[in-house]
Amino acid sequence: MAKVKKQPRPKAETPKGFRDYFGEDVAERTEMLGQIAEVYHRYGFDALETSAVETVEALGKFLPDVDRPNEGVFAWQEDDSGWVALRYDLTAPLARVYAQHRNDLPTPYRRYAMGPVWRNEKPGPGRFRQFYQCDADTVGAPSVAADAEICAMLSDTLEAVGIPRGDYIIRVNNRKVLNGVLETMGLVDEDQRAAVLRTIDKFDKVGEAGVRELLGKGRLDASGAYIDGVGLEPDRAEPVIAFLTAKGNDNAATLAQLKEAVGASGIGQEGVDELETIASLLDAQGYGADRIVIDPSVVRGLGYYTGPVFEAELTFEILDDKGRKRQFGSVAGGGRYDDLVKRFTGQVVPATGVSIGVDRLLAALREKGRKGAAPAAGPVVVTVMDRDRMADYQAMVSELRAAGLRAEVYLGNPKNFGNQLKYADKRGSPAAVIQGGDEFDRGVVQIKDLILGAKIAENASLEEWKSQPAQVEVARADLVSALREILDRQGK
Amino acid sequence: MAKVKKQPRPKAETPKGFRDYFGEDVAERTEMLGQIAEVYHRYGFDALETSAVETVEALGKFLPDVDRPNEGVFAWQEDDSGWVALRYDLTAPLARVYAQHRNDLPTPYRRYAMGPVWRNEKPGPGRFRQFYQCDADTVGAPSVAADAEICAMLSDTLEAVGIPRGDYIIRVNNRKVLNGVLETMGLVDEDQRAAVLRTIDKFDKVGEAGVRELLGKGRLDASGAYIDGVGLEPDRAEPVIAFLTAKGNDNAATLAQLKEAVGASGIGQEGVDELETIASLLDAQGYGADRIVIDPSVVRGLGYYTGPVFEAELTFEILDDKGRKRQFGSVAGGGRYDDLVKRFTGQVVPATGVSIGVDRLLAALREKGRKGAAPAAGPVVVTVMDRDRMADYQAMVSELRAAGLRAEVYLGNPKNFGNQLKYADKRGSPAAVIQGGDEFDRGVVQIKDLILGAKIAENASLEEWKSQPAQVEVARADLVSALREILDRQGK
Repeated sequence: MAKVKKQPRPKAETPKGFRDYFGEDVAERTEMLGQIAEVYHRYGFDALETSAVETVEALGKFLPDVDRPNEGVFAWQEDDSGWVALRYDLTAPLARVYAQHRNDLPTPYRRYAMGPVWRNEKPGPGRFRQFYQCDADTVGAPSVAADAEICAMLSDTLEAVGIPRGDYIIRVNNRKVLNGVLETMGLVDEDQRAAVLRTIDKFDKVGEAGVRELLGKGRLDASGAYIDGVGLEPDRAEPVIAFLTAKGNDNAATLAQLKEAVGASGIGQEGVDELETIASLLDAQGYGADRIVIDPSVVRGLGYYTGPVFEAELTFEILDDKGRKRQFGSVAGGGRYDDLVKRFTGQVVPATGVSIGVDRLLAALREKGRKGAAPAAGPVVVTVMDRDRMADYQAMVSELRAAGLRAEVYLGNPKNFGNQLKYADKRGSPAAVIQGGDEFDRGVVQIKDLILGAKIAENASLEEWKSQPAQVEVARADLVSALREILDRQGK
Repeated sequence: MAKVKKQPRPKAETPKGFRDYFGEDVAERTEMLGQIAEVYHRYGFDALETSAVETVEALGKFLPDVDRPNEGVFAWQEDDSGWVALRYDLTAPLARVYAQHRNDLPTPYRRYAMGPVWRNEKPGPGRFRQFYQCDADTVGAPSVAADAEICAMLSDTLEAVGIPRGDYIIRVNNRKVLNGVLETMGLVDEDQRAAVLRTIDKFDKVGEAGVRELLGKGRLDASGAYIDGVGLEPDRAEPVIAFLTAKGNDNAATLAQLKEAVGASGIGQEGVDELETIASLLDAQGYGADRIVIDPSVVRGLGYYTGPVFEAELTFEILDDKGRKRQFGSVAGGGRYDDLVKRFTGQVVPATGVSIGVDRLLAALREKGRKGAAPAAGPVVVTVMDRDRMADYQAMVSELRAAGLRAEVYLGNPKNFGNQLKYADKRGSPAAVIQGGDEFDRGVVQIKDLILGAKIAENASLEEWKSQPAQVEVARADLVSALREILDRQGK
């Protein structure tokens, strides 16, 4: 590239697929992450904040075997560090940290992490290249007690942020049970195993008959397209169906049917035993099947997990884009994976963890009216009637702040009073304070209730207007108490 | 670069100049930023979180006039967005956001931002390539009332995070006064003006006599090196000296002397008037010179600011690396700058703001014992004496957590009990809970006070050991209350 000549004005926009968060969106996320951190901390998890930039070598999945290892990640080359990239999740950095500091960290190491991750993928509506993750993992604990703990913690977390019991369910499955089913079927071909797993993942959508078709010759889907099947003989599909329909009325019934589904498979039996242990551990702590339940239909990412897997679903209904009711769906998931640090040290270290979809959970809280539904959280605006008396206006906001009220003085050009009220409106202000020279001489202030004012402007009768005027005059000394009263009336 | 052959094991380390933050370091920073956000919010400032990645074009300072515009920033090229880079501060993204959304944002726009920024600079001891900034800016407010507000807010913020009044001072100066002094001197040559400004910045170190020498022929510094002077005739230095020594016993005295120092300079007079307004606005809100003071020695960054500048210094003493006492120094600073969005829109928009050095302020709070001095915040560890009774141990921690105590069960291999206590020690646990088969049968638990235990191990007499044993046996039903008592005794 040659020297660039005099530049035109730069475009004021983010790079493609990136976005900004404003005001309450930031504050609400911060609040929610704080509530989550409190639960994690109580469970003995410690915070970890890794650098946003990692060496491509440490990230692992993306080795520098081409000039630009830029598939899926944002990567570039540094003179002193070689290829580096923005982290694409919080698990790869955990692996690096644990390998790097394993002699200083306690084992088991319980850690939580919250922060942005970056994916170099094609952006689309609602799909961004930078988004938040919030993870908790236990490294170095082989026992499924660690998995049970994660499930219990996830349940507590959802309730702590404001999802009521009954509005969510945490489903638990075990990859070993699935592997046992495949073993029972005598499937050894990797491609065929993968195809069966993909089919199992579709059970929610296509049901038992659909799975039978997809395991066999194939299936005409709703759009009219023909989907090729795995090509198994009809009776070989039975273990899969037995597995998928193993969910009984309670965990004991489900476990009994899973035991049958895995037949003589050793790994399958081990998986069922683990699920039984998890269920009994949770039961002892009072987490019943109304919160955490064994459910064979949970598959979650095909290659990654090696043991228990879990998924938190919100069960209340929302309206989709087309106005149809549907369940809100998954907001968190995780499971056990075993090769966390092996790449670095050669040592196998067992780990289990959960990742919460921060944006999805925030959206759910908004649906439930737990966030975003509060009346405007804007500041009280003290208007400027006389620019020479700025000190008086500043003293007013100072008093209001000292009393814990959010308040500011208008700092734009005060000439046009209408602009000041427009500003207050844009800020979502609950009230404006007005003191001109006349009011100053009489030792009073005017307070304009902007919420009530807007309501009255819309639809009040003359009587209502008179009985509850949107603007009151109070003694200057009563400014704080009068504003408090108005804000209380507004429900703030 | 050709295809890379089979890789050796990757190194488990961050790229050069990057670091990780563990446990309390993360939690303490989060807490401090939360306290700061609360003050900012009360002042009417709204949160803004921009994307970490910006187009190089929007960042501005670093135009793509070379193949790799990688001077000072981490930059790389994307197919669909051209050259992009990690943000190097929080002001450049604010400029982009304000230009992009100026029709939707209120004017004035008060915003705060907190988050990491990245600098592609040579790393060194204590100098990292990713660090936190915490900024508050008011965009579109030409009045110095906005500057006064920032100073008041900075004062409230320092006290809110735990710096007591008297341990900090906010110094305010005005670049216009400085420019007035230069005008009075008849200095028009840009290089000479810059040299004088650099000299002024050294006043703290070299004093009045040193400044006289540096403005004249030059000076032999402490190390024996000769520093060339600006080369002014001795009497031409007088306005600078008058300016630098203008600080009086109170703001009124300082302002009177500054008025003299700027003589007939229009811009200088304007600057003094602005400082007078700021002082009187702050005075009206009760911010006296014990918190915010006019001080001509504050220069802050030579090219950037166009009006008032301010700096928060912590005045308490710490010991430096060599054990000598020195003041802690600057933790925040800012001022007025006017070409924020001009690059994008051609429009001049006045702005003023402050940036808090997050790491410096945290370090200060640690020095003051406000952070990091709390007794170990580790969890109570419930040990595993009998792995078949994991459900019982889980039920115990569940009870403890429900009572608000931080607690966890040991999830490593329980075979070696010594390892469990070593683990508790590494975790900074205040207490361990022990229940073997015998205790279980008798319906009791043992609680080991690990803080007291460590103390006793160090230096207790036999009598002390007997009178306040580090291990007590309590009824299982009393587990929570007994632990509470021990934690209270430890001061938690």
